[in-house]
Amino acid sequence: MAHSQIVTCIDELEQHARTHLPKNAFDYYSSGANDQRTLAENRAAFYRLRFLPRILRDVSQVDLGVSLLNGTQTLASPICIAPTAMQRMAHPDGEIATARAAAASESLMILSSWSTTSIEDVAAANGNAGARWFQLYVYRDRAVTAQLVKRAEQSGYTALVLTVDTPILGRREADIRNGFRLPPHLRLANFSETDSKATGVSITDKKDSGLAAYVAAQIDQTLTWKDVKWLQSITKLPIILKGVLSPEDATLAVDHGVQGILVSNHGARQLDGVPATIEALPGIVAAVGSRCDVYLDGGVRRGTDVLMALALGAKAVFVGRPVLWGLAYKGEEGVQIALTLLQQELKLAMQLAGCSKLADLTPSLVVSASTYTHAKL
Amino acid sequence: MAHSQIVTCIDELEQHARTHLPKNAFDYYSSGANDQRTLAENRAAFYRLRFLPRILRDVSQVDLGVSLLNGTQTLASPICIAPTAMQRMAHPDGEIATARAAAASESLMILSSWSTTSIEDVAAANGNAGARWFQLYVYRDRAVTAQLVKRAEQSGYTALVLTVDTPILGRREADIRNGFRLPPHLRLANFSETDSKATGVSITDKKDSGLAAYVAAQIDQTLTWKDVKWLQSITKLPIILKGVLSPEDATLAVDHGVQGILVSNHGARQLDGVPATIEALPGIVAAVGSRCDVYLDGGVRRGTDVLMALALGAKAVFVGRPVLWGLAYKGEEGVQIALTLLQQELKLAMQLAGCSKLADLTPSLVVSASTYTHAKL
Amino acid sequence: MAHSQIVTCIDELEQHARTHLPKNAFDYYSSGANDQRTLAENRAAFYRLRFLPRILRDVSQVDLGVSLLNGTQTLASPICIAPTAMQRMAHPDGEIATARAAAASESLMILSSWSTTSIEDVAAANGNAGARWFQLYVYRDRAVTAQLVKRAEQSGYTALVLTVDTPILGRREADIRNGFRLPPHLRLANFSETDSKATGVSITDKKDSGLAAYVAAQIDQTLTWKDVKWLQSITKLPIILKGVLSPEDATLAVDHGVQGILVSNHGARQLDGVPATIEALPGIVAAVGSRCDVYLDGGVRRGTDVLMALALGAKAVFVGRPVLWGLAYKGEEGVQIALTLLQQELKLAMQLAGCSKLADLTPSLVVSASTYTHAKL
Amino acid sequence: MAHSQIVTCIDELEQHARTHLPKNAFDYYSSGANDQRTLAENRAAFYRLRFLPRILRDVSQVDLGVSLLNGTQTLASPICIAPTAMQRMAHPDGEIATARAAAASESLMILSSWSTTSIEDVAAANGNAGARWFQLYVYRDRAVTAQLVKRAEQSGYTALVLTVDTPILGRREADIRNGFRLPPHLRLANFSETDSKATGVSITDKKDSGLAAYVAAQIDQTLTWKDVKWLQSITKLPIILKGVLSPEDATLAVDHGVQGILVSNHGARQLDGVPATIEALPGIVAAVGSRCDVYLDGGVRRGTDVLMALALGAKAVFVGRPVLWGLAYKGEEGVQIALTLLQQELKLAMQLAGCSKLADLTPSLVVSASTYTHAKL
Ligand SMILES: Cc1cc2nc3c(=O)[nH]c(=O)nc-3n(C[C@H](O)[C@H](O)[C@H](O)COP(=O)(O)O)c2cc1C
Ligand SMILES: Cc1cc2nc3c(=O)[nH]c(=O)nc-3n(C[C@H](O)[C@H](O)[C@H](O)COP(=O)(O)O)c2cc1C
Ligand SMILES: Cc1cc2nc3c(=O)[nH]c(=O)nc-3n(C[C@H](O)[C@H](O)[C@H](O)COP(=O)(O)O)c2cc1C
Ligand SMILES: Cc1cc2nc3c(=O)[nH]c(=O)nc-3n(C[C@H](O)[C@H](O)[C@H](O)COP(=O)(O)O)c2cc1C
Repeated sequence: MAHSQIVTCIDELEQHARTHLPKNAFDYYSSGANDQRTLAENRAAFYRLRFLPRILRDVSQVDLGVSLLNGTQTLASPICIAPTAMQRMAHPDGEIATARAAAASESLMILSSWSTTSIEDVAAANGNAGARWFQLYVYRDRAVTAQLVKRAEQSGYTALVLTVDTPILGRREADIRNGFRLPPHLRLANFSETDSKATGVSITDKKDSGLAAYVAAQIDQTLTWKDVKWLQSITKLPIILKGVLSPEDATLAVDHGVQGILVSNHGARQLDGVPATIEALPGIVAAVGSRCDVYLDGGVRRGTDVLMALALGAKAVFVGRPVLWGLAYKGEEGVQIALTLLQQELKLAMQLAGCSKLADLTPSLVVSASTYTHAKL
Repeated sequence: MAHSQIVTCIDELEQHARTHLPKNAFDYYSSGANDQRTLAENRAAFYRLRFLPRILRDVSQVDLGVSLLNGTQTLASPICIAPTAMQRMAHPDGEIATARAAAASESLMILSSWSTTSIEDVAAANGNAGARWFQLYVYRDRAVTAQLVKRAEQSGYTALVLTVDTPILGRREADIRNGFRLPPHLRLANFSETDSKATGVSITDKKDSGLAAYVAAQIDQTLTWKDVKWLQSITKLPIILKGVLSPEDATLAVDHGVQGILVSNHGARQLDGVPATIEALPGIVAAVGSRCDVYLDGGVRRGTDVLMALALGAKAVFVGRPVLWGLAYKGEEGVQIALTLLQQELKLAMQLAGCSKLADLTPSLVVSASTYTHAKL
Repeated sequence: MAHSQIVTCIDELEQHARTHLPKNAFDYYSSGANDQRTLAENRAAFYRLRFLPRILRDVSQVDLGVSLLNGTQTLASPICIAPTAMQRMAHPDGEIATARAAAASESLMILSSWSTTSIEDVAAANGNAGARWFQLYVYRDRAVTAQLVKRAEQSGYTALVLTVDTPILGRREADIRNGFRLPPHLRLANFSETDSKATGVSITDKKDSGLAAYVAAQIDQTLTWKDVKWLQSITKLPIILKGVLSPEDATLAVDHGVQGILVSNHGARQLDGVPATIEALPGIVAAVGSRCDVYLDGGVRRGTDVLMALALGAKAVFVGRPVLWGLAYKGEEGVQIALTLLQQELKLAMQLAGCSKLADLTPSLVVSASTYTHAKL
Repeated sequence: MAHSQIVTCIDELEQHARTHLPKNAFDYYSSGANDQRTLAENRAAFYRLRFLPRILRDVSQVDLGVSLLNGTQTLASPICIAPTAMQRMAHPDGEIATARAAAASESLMILSSWSTTSIEDVAAANGNAGARWFQLYVYRDRAVTAQLVKRAEQSGYTALVLTVDTPILGRREADIRNGFRLPPHLRLANFSETDSKATGVSITDKKDSGLAAYVAAQIDQTLTWKDVKWLQSITKLPIILKGVLSPEDATLAVDHGVQGILVSNHGARQLDGVPATIEALPGIVAAVGSRCDVYLDGGVRRGTDVLMALALGAKAVFVGRPVLWGLAYKGEEGVQIALTLLQQELKLAMQLAGCSKLADLTPSLVVSASTYTHAKL
């Protein structure tokens, strides 16, 4: 794919990034934990589902619009941007480019706590019309944490996405082999040098990736449900739990008053061996019913993937790496290409499935391949 | 395979086409949509079924004869020709060669709306003894549509095959990459230059294949069951719905008085992720019972595939690409080779299964491989 | 593997044959029908079964002895030789070498109707102590057929193995491509030149293998259960049906008074798509109970395969190609190597499974892998 | 991986051994029996399980401590060393290095009967603080056997691990091809030259591996449950049966008063075709309940594997080859690297699963992948 050519699919963007990014950056972005089997499953699991499309329905007008969090957040499409750390390794504009592309595509962006651009600068780039949520890591130092929340509120982020699958960083072996750390010209922009040793990221632990050492030093490993209550006590923003895979935890989440659950395995970067997110989704949707929003991220690379997730009950899906590949391709324009591609594919898939609005998407649209392979004939 | 050699199987014909056709033509013919997983499944699903052959039955006389559409259409064999667009890209004789070979093989041919030879010329080539149906795309301009129907009637096409899985063209990425469009020396022969912009196929949308642009411009995306009624009101020909995968739609189809259902996923060229047709077949047969004919196309490359489909309730099967590979090999003679090969393989498979006529083929002849792999021992 | 080296397993013998036999002979021996998927399944299916070995049992004395056909045939081991045609293509000694090796290994040999050595010469080589059955193809000319039966009786063959899966020859595409026919210096030794056109094998049908043409011309395609009765009327030898895959046919077989059923798919050379024989076995054992012997052939390459078949109810197993590979390796000595290898592997497998005689082998020794892969945990 | 680099995972150690050990030593260590399909399954089966991690649990303090054999054996971690023969082929220090590394890592070591260092020397290297069990093979000569037991008792081995899956050695074809035997400078250190022909290992049976010949000559093939009673009569040490795969045998084992069951298939080196140990585990845990300890070995290469085994009811896991790869890498230090790596991975996996002590690990943490792939949606 040369720059002058059409981008046909997300995988082409990844292919471009693989050959254009520095190896340690590409590896950091692309890797999953350990043997990367959940990484493979996140994709493969979509391939084990089958559509049952309907025919002879008027699909001349397709509406991808969706409303989240009890109608407080309306979006032109259910395809949103997952939080990924350190986007300026992919392109000099980093999170600024992402924020602009998100606004231009009428998409929603979640900003990572570990962005290489500050909360405030991203908000400015995203603009008044933009839609943005803030992803929160809870630091051992609660003052640092509370400060992040306050800044997000003040900068127009309309929800907090609390990541709960990262008490410690998963083993990403390429990062260990590469001795991965943030390049010297970049920094975690939301933390000052003196900020409770938050600059720990520059620690050079010879046995591990720099990021793993930073997380071990800074992130609160004692986090429990009472801390969700604490967070609710310091903010009025709706709270979404990111990284839920067990239906029991989903039930606990709604019992604790969260407004949304993001079914996620952190892009297969934490515990290797967990289910693909599309596999975990139905159990969680069944557990929470309509008591809160359920979203999904992990391995979404096609409009058909989005269609499957929505049909199985997700209100929106988030993409992580596709945005990074877009960034690496052409900054803001590249991110827009990625988002537009997914939106177009989703629209087309809906038309071919006989659906013209998200409300048409129900579980009856999707069956497990095993329904066929194990059929009694 | 040199021209002087025997053609052993359909796959050899495909191999020949792969090395002899221009890349953009071969790609257009061979591609499926997106990741082409349904394309692979259309073949793989046959491999997940198992025969239970019977022994010690007199198989000295095998009769492949079949009668369709309530006895109004009798054929020497249940292996027929699916409609495929633009056959003159495969061989200068295009649809003429196909029509002649069909007649010579006592097979039935469905002509595509998008043929590169006119309805009338194909009818003439197919002749009085030939059996031909016409595949219909419904245009936004209903006058264009009605005109096609009238011409088909007048030229001795004895049924209309209404394609219902193509309100818009599926994403075939090779075509997008190739910037696929009809070669300048060819045209969609059933449409005049002035015919309600039907020449739109020459539009050069830089972002897509020319055919995709044409379809988006011309084909009626508002098509619903009421339009089936409209079609019935303008013709006395029996109507077959092509592209049915859901049992619910099959039931609706018979409720709307269609005479046949062609279980098809358009050769895996529309919505990627739908079931293989041989997997979808049993559910549809169960839904419609004997209320109308059920046919199948998709991935049929072997006499054993035909045997499986017939055993599971299809009255006839249609082949798309095998005919194109035959055309590319040797025009009319090549198509005959393809059809004869399949007929011979079917006959042999029936003998080895202990069957001597199509009525002997019942579901008890076929089981899912999972019956064995998941047996309690 | 050089001639001076130890033969470690049957696959090494096949590897040797692949590199030492003329291509058309190796292809004829090794091929399965069409896409050869049943050929692959015959092996793969063993891999989908699991042993549940027992411990702390005295396995110092292992007895492989077995008695077949109501005690009229006792053998030192349950590993016997399946009938394979034209063995002199593998080694000049052909069936003579096989007959001698069978006797030396105290194994049982089934001679093919299509041997390249006569019924009488093979009997002489096999000797008084040898154990031999005769495989029968029923010719259109019943006099030819009756003559074969009489000669077998007179030469000390103690059972007739009636092959019922070959009313016509399966499509073996390598043979078609190779234009396979019997080399000029060899002949089907049980038929005279004048014998009702039985020399038809030399017919050179340009569109097919010579053998296929021969079978189409000579073999009776009208064979039914009444012909089993006819055969019983002209001989007192016990009759074994070879090529049964459906439990219904197995029941019919015992109802018609046969003494044995050989579960076989003809080494995957007839109808492609039938089950692996080890998968078909349990259903047939269940259908016939103790009313007659059940045997198995197809894909047996390991002592562990034999153990699985016996545990699931086979009284003996037969090997086809392993004997041909042994022949090609070193004639009589090579066949003995193959048989001894399998016997040793079986003995070892029994010891490791905690079994010391064939009566210890029960279905509880084997489970489907799906028992584990689909376990509720 | 150069010596100066970090070892990222066990597989890297194996890779190093593959390129640094003499071929016949590496082959002996790495091989499984016959087609090595159980060898592959021992790994693959872990990949067919899925974790259901829990969130928002305090995982700041993780305790890997475990107590075995009714509290008589307490260990800092549940990752222990399986007995493997002839460790001095991997490194000159052999079992001495292993014993020291075990002590340094606060791990438990099982010494093989066939060690290349004596029972007493290993005990000395392991030291007072070390934890060691002795693996027993029962020799035809019971005096030899009783002598081993007595020496183990006197040298501070605190349990006997009776291997019951090796009445005869499995077929490891690489060893047969390599004509494998113990290098001349090494000997089975627990046996004197005159010891009832125990030096039989030097016998050069041209048809087999030297070890196989030795086992056939020396090991008691008549071993039954009464010999367990005999063993109990000559020792007060707790007895663990190693090599149990069938739930029935597990029940018999507890009925015969053993204190532990090691679910093992001998690293897939005995009967090819048995289940993976992680697949056999749940059935055995269900059969014995809390009547004795259940352990597992076989294919454990990751902390996540350990987590799965513990969740499914194993009290401890043992690793065989990883220790050999560690030895081959750097002797004592290499073994410690291997053990530490697994301990760190286990700790991390527990944190990511929301568990802080072994008692938190219950079957609800693990589901079969089939739960998802075969879900009704
Ligand atoms: C390079 C990278 C960095 C990430 N950084 C964060 C982060 O800082 N915070 C967070 O909650 N999730 C983070 N994630 C996880 C993503 O939010 C998301 O769960 C995941 O990327 C979705 O899978 P996908 O990449 O297959 O779309 C990161 C993922 C990647 C690939
Ligand atoms: C190159 C090509 C062109 C096609 N054109 C049409 C068409 O014009 N109208 C239609 O209804 N189906 C069309 N189809 C679908 C075929 O009718 C049929 O459903 C499909 O080819 C069957 O699968 P097979 O190719 O595996 O046999 C086309 C398929 C191919 C491969
Ligand atoms: C080269 C070859 C020739 C065969 N010829 C005959 C035959 O003449 N008659 C017959 O009943 N079966 C014949 N068979 C089938 C064998 O008897 C047997 O069913 C099959 O070989 C068993 O499978 P295996 O080769 O995997 O062991 C033949 C098989 C092969 C491979
Ligand atoms: C090279 C080697 C030698 C072994 N020697 C013995 C032995 O002497 N006694 C025994 O009971 N098990 C022996 N085993 C089996 C191990 O104790 C253990 O069951 C197995 O290695 C576990 O599988 P793993 O290697 O995949 O961890 C040996 C295994 C290997 C690989």
